[in-house]
Amino acid sequence: MITARDISVLVGGELRGNPDRVITALSTLEQAEAHCVSFLADKKYRSLLDTCKAGLLLVPTNLDIAYVGDTIRVDDPYLAFAQVSAVFDPEPPVAEGVHTSAQIAPSATLGLGVQIGANTVVGPDVVLHDGVCLAANVTLGARTQIGEATIIYPGVTIYHDVRVGKRCRIHAGTVIGSHGFGYANNQGNWHKIAQIGGVVIGDDVEIGANCAIDRGAIEDTRIEQGVKIDNLVHIAHNVTIGAHTALAGQVGISGSTDIGHHTMVGGQSGFAGHIKTAPSSVFTGQSMVTGSVPESGMYSSGTGIMPSKDWRKMVARMRNLDALHRRVQQLEKQLERQAAQPAKDNNDLAD
Amino acid sequence: MITARDISVLVGGELRGNPDRVITALSTLEQAEAHCVSFLADKKYRSLLDTCKAGLLLVPTNLDIAYVGDTIRVDDPYLAFAQVSAVFDPEPPVAEGVHTSAQIAPSATLGLGVQIGANTVVGPDVVLHDGVCLAANVTLGARTQIGEATIIYPGVTIYHDVRVGKRCRIHAGTVIGSHGFGYANNQGNWHKIAQIGGVVIGDDVEIGANCAIDRGAIEDTRIEQGVKIDNLVHIAHNVTIGAHTALAGQVGISGSTDIGHHTMVGGQSGFAGHIKTAPSSVFTGQSMVTGSVPESGMYSSGTGIMPSKDWRKMVARMRNLDALHRRVQQLEKQLERQAAQPAKDNNDLAD
Amino acid sequence: MITARDISVLVGGELRGNPDRVITALSTLEQAEAHCVSFLADKKYRSLLDTCKAGLLLVPTNLDIAYVGDTIRVDDPYLAFAQVSAVFDPEPPVAEGVHTSAQIAPSATLGLGVQIGANTVVGPDVVLHDGVCLAANVTLGARTQIGEATIIYPGVTIYHDVRVGKRCRIHAGTVIGSHGFGYANNQGNWHKIAQIGGVVIGDDVEIGANCAIDRGAIEDTRIEQGVKIDNLVHIAHNVTIGAHTALAGQVGISGSTDIGHHTMVGGQSGFAGHIKTAPSSVFTGQSMVTGSVPESGMYSSGTGIMPSKDWRKMVARMRNLDALHRRVQQLEKQLERQAAQPAKDNNDLAD
Repeated sequence: MITARDISVLVGGELRGNPDRVITALSTLEQAEAHCVSFLADKKYRSLLDTCKAGLLLVPTNLDIAYVGDTIRVDDPYLAFAQVSAVFDPEPPVAEGVHTSAQIAPSATLGLGVQIGANTVVGPDVVLHDGVCLAANVTLGARTQIGEATIIYPGVTIYHDVRVGKRCRIHAGTVIGSHGFGYANNQGNWHKIAQIGGVVIGDDVEIGANCAIDRGAIEDTRIEQGVKIDNLVHIAHNVTIGAHTALAGQVGISGSTDIGHHTMVGGQSGFAGHIKTAPSSVFTGQSMVTGSVPESGMYSSGTGIMPSKDWRKMVARMRNLDALHRRVQQLEKQLERQAAQPAKDNNDLAD
Repeated sequence: MITARDISVLVGGELRGNPDRVITALSTLEQAEAHCVSFLADKKYRSLLDTCKAGLLLVPTNLDIAYVGDTIRVDDPYLAFAQVSAVFDPEPPVAEGVHTSAQIAPSATLGLGVQIGANTVVGPDVVLHDGVCLAANVTLGARTQIGEATIIYPGVTIYHDVRVGKRCRIHAGTVIGSHGFGYANNQGNWHKIAQIGGVVIGDDVEIGANCAIDRGAIEDTRIEQGVKIDNLVHIAHNVTIGAHTALAGQVGISGSTDIGHHTMVGGQSGFAGHIKTAPSSVFTGQSMVTGSVPESGMYSSGTGIMPSKDWRKMVARMRNLDALHRRVQQLEKQLERQAAQPAKDNNDLAD
Repeated sequence: MITARDISVLVGGELRGNPDRVITALSTLEQAEAHCVSFLADKKYRSLLDTCKAGLLLVPTNLDIAYVGDTIRVDDPYLAFAQVSAVFDPEPPVAEGVHTSAQIAPSATLGLGVQIGANTVVGPDVVLHDGVCLAANVTLGARTQIGEATIIYPGVTIYHDVRVGKRCRIHAGTVIGSHGFGYANNQGNWHKIAQIGGVVIGDDVEIGANCAIDRGAIEDTRIEQGVKIDNLVHIAHNVTIGAHTALAGQVGISGSTDIGHHTMVGGQSGFAGHIKTAPSSVFTGQSMVTGSVPESGMYSSGTGIMPSKDWRKMVARMRNLDALHRRVQQLEKQLERQAAQPAKDNNDLAD
């Protein structure tokens, strides 16, 4: 049983109201009822408070809120919401105990409290540290190491010689350690370059569903601590993703590229290979990053949508942009000549 | 044994020719032989009929077709082709019976005629309605419900508390109910927001291979009835996809976005978060949708390809577009001044 | 034990130095030690040789290299590196023997030396030719055929009636033979078109992780010999990928499109359906290919990134490009009129 007092302690906020109020759910401002906790993180939603029925509300200390129900004042209600969300998470453990159908190599090492789901396959010399939880239908290759308390969801494949940090979450269907896309061309035929590096993933990394993170060609691919990766992201061989960087859905990073720490990359952005981007940068969705970015900043690319018939016209005009530029240059020259002309004309008149 | 008569009854068309002709395959106009049924859906392929050897042809009633073989006249030959295609589909059932190696929680409920493939894992309190068919290596989380006659292909993972409608197909490798990409930032560190909502999928939805559809943060992610989703599509938390909308391959929809019903989205298009698009809209491939689209229509973005050396020049010019604009403005002012000038000149002359 | 002599024989190069030197690792120029072989493929890295400690170096015959250690002179050091890489690959076999937990249909045919990992499911009438290696948690549908020495990594799903060539590698999580995205629309509802074609994959094809390759609607989808496909690539029904073509990560090819042989496609590029591209073409990353490309060449699209505030201005200008064009046209006309004007003015003066 969770009370308003429990929540105020958890978030370190100032409770105004009944400390014994029982809270059984986390809800949006619109859907909340008396047994719910909700939050106001952005003052633009303030008007929703008039009709809000939440029994308990997380509100910012720096805002003067008149709310009929109980409140907890906190510096950052969105952060407080994150803390409270875990309390009301209905997710069951992804595995309980070690399932009899799991196939675990005799040479694998299992720490204390390791959980392994049905039909999961653990290769030779794998090390699972204390509290690791592998869901069903996971496959781990030889010598791979998984850090303490890391959770791996169903259907994940990790190849051999990959090291994953502590408290990571790797969502369903993701592949880590697949071969980098490396070939030498010989008279039109591609010769495979064996990918003998590994992948090293830091602590507190979360990776979404159906991502693909390749192993290095010679040295390792590196995902540093605190990185958060959304679904369907592609990370090529020998990439480094700096600490605490966030990559949104369907981002692609080409080989040997180094993304700075604390960077935010919008969905479907693509990065060329062998480039380096400055830390704390922001790339908006569908960014096309073809070269290194030496200065931190916010970057964008693309045309945005237009009604298709206007767009077709615009594209045609874009293709003539060089010609248009030269026409403007021509006009400028003509006007310059004209500006010189009157004098000559005057002279003519003077004749 | 399927005859021309059977096919004419199935498609509700008018048969001209031998009703007892045995048809054993569906074929293209070019490859068809006497035992095949083929179709003419677009009059631009009309010339192929001269050499077509199909024993039976689906043709549009509104077109005067002179074909040497037998025909069935229908209003919409492409729709008739869709109906006939199912008859000649060689796909075997994705599972038969309940395989002994499947791991089914004792608390799961299995309807009549449920089929479950090898090594599939069904979590506690899962409900599989009548006629559900789970292929091999599928994983279903706790309390998930699958509607009547839905087919789930190999390697699919569905997390806990997801509801899938009737007659859906979910293709191999797809993940439904993974955690939405939600974090609160605290001094550069990301704090996870537990994703406590679910996913609700309507009836007659088809989802392609290796998609990722996240569960909601607080409320549910929603895919409405009749939606068709191609491969490798990313749908973030709390998205709503309106009924009968089609999303082509590699489309990405960011969090809380609401795509109207009967929309068609071309491949690799991306939608920003927290936006809403009008129903019955069309977005061509690689559309970059950064804001709400209040009016139905056809939208596009992007530059299209050009020879790389022309493209480099164009991009350079685009980067100077603002400067070019200002130069044209300058020219306009100069000419305006000139237009005013002659009067002054005349005055001069008048002096 | 591998010696410098062994390596010189493998790569067919000219050894200068101690043939009995034992080499135990392949390394980068920066990390190499005395027991390592490294390579110089690009003369721009030449300066690294000053501090390089590699015991053995692969260098190009056409470059005059002064290196303190031993060298092997070869025509193409990058190709030689590819050959040597296989020797030092630590990857263990993806399966050894046929695991007792594998579910193999009695009607399947297994060639000599076939290896099958734990929990893998092999459907009825599947044919696995000699030396095929299936990792754990793979699912193969009915009648599918896998050519000699092909390796399939964990979690791959191949549907029924797919043919894969010899010496292919299919990485984890990839799906082959899922249904093409084909529907006939009837008054706003989508009617499924059964996808009765298959997929045919040539010899020496490598496919990355979490790709999706659809089966054909009527005829087959085709991936020709020597094609290399990176991660998360989407290939729609009835596509043909010509021999020795390379597709980088997250590329998408729409239905019935035919990509020429020896083509190189950069990451996240998208191709419209029913088009054909000339062989030996290059498309840079994020190319947007909306029509056929009859001439071989190098093609690009997109705007590249800019600081977001400059980009917003540019996009606004782009949307007015047609107006700008018309304004320039207007200016040109005005100046043309002016050019004609002086004569008239002179006439005026002559009056």
